Amino acid sequence: MNHSPTEAEAEAAAPLHYLSKEEAAAIETELLSDYRFGKQQLIEICGQACAIAIVKAFPLTSMAKRQPTVLVVCGPDQNGCIGLVCARHLRIFEYEPTIFYPKRSPHSMHQDFTVQCEKMDIPFLSYLPTEVQLINDAYNLVVDAIAGPETDLTNLREPYTGILVTLKQVKIPIASLDMPSGWQMEGDNTSGINPEVLVSLMAPKKCAASFSGKHFLAGRFLPFDIQRKYELNLPEYPGTEFLVEL
Amino acid sequence: MNHSPTEAEAEAAAPLHYLSKEEAAAIETELLSDYRFGKQQLIEICGQACAIAIVKAFPLTSMAKRQPTVLVVCGPDQNGCIGLVCARHLRIFEYEPTIFYPKRSPHSMHQDFTVQCEKMDIPFLSYLPTEVQLINDAYNLVVDAIAGPETDLTNLREPYTGILVTLKQVKIPIASLDMPSGWQMEGDNTSGINPEVLVSLMAPKKCAASFSGKHFLAGRFLPFDIQRKYELNLPEYPGTEFLVEL
Repeated sequence: MNHSPTEAEAEAAAPLHYLSKEEAAAIETELLSDYRFGKQQLIEICGQACAIAIVKAFPLTSMAKRQPTVLVVCGPDQNGCIGLVCARHLRIFEYEPTIFYPKRSPHSMHQDFTVQCEKMDIPFLSYLPTEVQLINDAYNLVVDAIAGPETDLTNLREPYTGILVTLKQVKIPIASLDMPSGWQMEGDNTSGINPEVLVSLMAPKKCAASFSGKHFLAGRFLPFDIQRKYELNLPEYPGTEFLVEL
Repeated sequence: MNHSPTEAEAEAAAPLHYLSKEEAAAIETELLSDYRFGKQQLIEICGQACAIAIVKAFPLTSMAKRQPTVLVVCGPDQNGCIGLVCARHLRIFEYEPTIFYPKRSPHSMHQDFTVQCEKMDIPFLSYLPTEVQLINDAYNLVVDAIAGPETDLTNLREPYTGILVTLKQVKIPIASLDMPSGWQMEGDNTSGINPEVLVSLMAPKKCAASFSGKHFLAGRFLPFDIQRKYELNLPEYPGTEFLVEL
């Protein structure tokens, strides 16, 4: 077979596009309305890829503590559900996740994702210790699944402002899913946390342009037509992998 | 960190358990009712893993034909939907799937999976050529997604009996998802096809015990409690992979 440049290769020369809030919303609407993807389907596949990213960045063999503990902090919306799915797959990968999910969504699909974790005996914290040393001592890392592009950040009051204060002080590494907590999607990041790892979902958001840590892209299901329409210029994913490092 | 035997390693010594029809149904019921997994979620994750299995067994670089064409034949039930998802992920992996889905389910979730493929410009055949040479010439392989444990085989009349006759004659390799067409779940396989590859989902079914081709297990999401309860004795999946060869 002749090797002609693949679609991904041909586009790789152009610079990666960072999504505005409007573009992220438009892509999600197109996936759900035109392509008729289900939210459950997209959340599952994104959360699974996030778990793989955590394993890549923090392999079991690299854990500083005796037990491979991970604290997963879940927000009230979709990003929180991706965190729940990530925790469940981390459990399957033989990590020991603990979930802090302070404001549980009344949405039945979100409840389903919660039950899946509960039934797999993943512990849920009823509160987050304000004494940061307790978190540093108990966990190897924190997964920050508090907010994504769908989150109305102006409504993120307590308990999230308190959580943000705590996460800014922890000394163990943080991996953020799609958007680091406290970052504005397109603007100021100065009041946010400083994660070691960021997993961008489908395409990186504008705020990610200033991220200097380990940056993964996940979401290898995005139709080629959407990639072209929004001129995403995504890099090629290797082999059958669901992640590529940016 | 000390390396103590993992749960999977500890169980690996015991022989793999092949599921009866009742056991397969009981596990599915438990996943849906107790764990509150969604069908959409399970089908997506199984179909994705099947696509990875196809890539492993038939890499792009091994294709005999100039174009990496794959014919995916989808049955009327859940196995057919897994085939649709598999086809979509194969397209993302830069294969060129064509789908034959003669009896489309009226179930809205199944229609959603269909639209996802249509919107990604995957062609659908309106009929299967009875002249087998046309299939041998046009495609590198066939994915058989006609029937799974959920299928009432006594109801699989036309067009599936005709399709079975055709598939028995094709010379290109066939990869079957969960159950090869024409095989009884627990019994006689003599009137069925003879696939090169079988991808068992979650755990192999009784009929798979007599399969001598390349055999993958997929479905790395099955809760450990269910694995123990049904004494599945699954082998350990390597790293973050979603497949293990049996």
